[in-house]
Amino acid sequence: MRNTDEKWLRIAACEGRIGARKGEGGPFGACVVKNGVLIGRAHSEVIKRSNPCAHAEINAIRLACRKLKTVDLSGATLYTSCEPCPMCMGAALWARLSRVVYGVSIEKATEIGFDHSLFYDYFKDRSIVRWLEVKEVKSKGCTDLMNAWLLNPRRQHY
Amino acid sequence: MRNTDEKWLRIAACEGRIGARKGEGGPFGACVVKNGVLIGRAHSEVIKRSNPCAHAEINAIRLACRKLKTVDLSGATLYTSCEPCPMCMGAALWARLSRVVYGVSIEKATEIGFDHSLFYDYFKDRSIVRWLEVKEVKSKGCTDLMNAWLLNPRRQHY
Repeated sequence: MRNTDEKWLRIAACEGRIGARKGEGGPFGACVVKNGVLIGRAHSEVIKRSNPCAHAEINAIRLACRKLKTVDLSGATLYTSCEPCPMCMGAALWARLSRVVYGVSIEKATEIGFDHSLFYDYFKDRSIVRWLEVKEVKSKGCTDLMNAWLLNPRRQHY
Repeated sequence: MRNTDEKWLRIAACEGRIGARKGEGGPFGACVVKNGVLIGRAHSEVIKRSNPCAHAEINAIRLACRKLKTVDLSGATLYTSCEPCPMCMGAALWARLSRVVYGVSIEKATEIGFDHSLFYDYFKDRSIVRWLEVKEVKSKGCTDLMNAWLLNPRRQHY
């Protein structure tokens, strides 16, 4: 397993190098593998797309799901050059991935100027991020929308 | 402020209704507003795109950033029909949003079958999600990729 993991992490690193050299995003690459087969590989495209959500992991999950025509990647592994941020871990959870394997821990991301670590702290104590106010404003329209879901004939569970 | 918030939450709920009626995703809508101007609105497209990351908030942030040609939404507010999941809160943090305002709390999402709440618990105690293994496998290729970043002439901070 370890040798196999190292092989796929090399692919993830290779993707990251491609993206960084092209100036498309930060130094991050990822791939999704299921039953020994590569089903998606991607790098960060945050700069290229002016999209703060276009992380390597999000992109690789999107491509893998498109290829398999599913939102369920159970049984698959996400290989990523760096320990994922909370956004990407959230994506891995939604995609029902079975494994996430990373090659460098989050401290290295902090060292080169990325906020991963602070964002993990945020989930333990929201007051840490002072620039963001998060607030509930009760809304009947939003409640009605949720209540209507269980009666919706086009409802698909995911 | 409260009246204004309610107005934009109605737009978010309206987006959610459009998406749910079309069968494009769950009952979730969102919009991004800056200086009183709507700069992005979207609903969940998880089903339509077979993409578990295509939440309303992620889509609205992407559209707003594209419109303003930036990855920095500081000064802007994300209005979302339901309290965001950790993936979307992570996206809000990366986008440097100043406010997140939601119309229904996360318990309602649980009630109609979505996993938001479990995913927040995951960030407090990873052992809660039993189907996912997360593992570091130290990789020289990935470390080299990170180390090269600070010397990269195409490096842009975000």
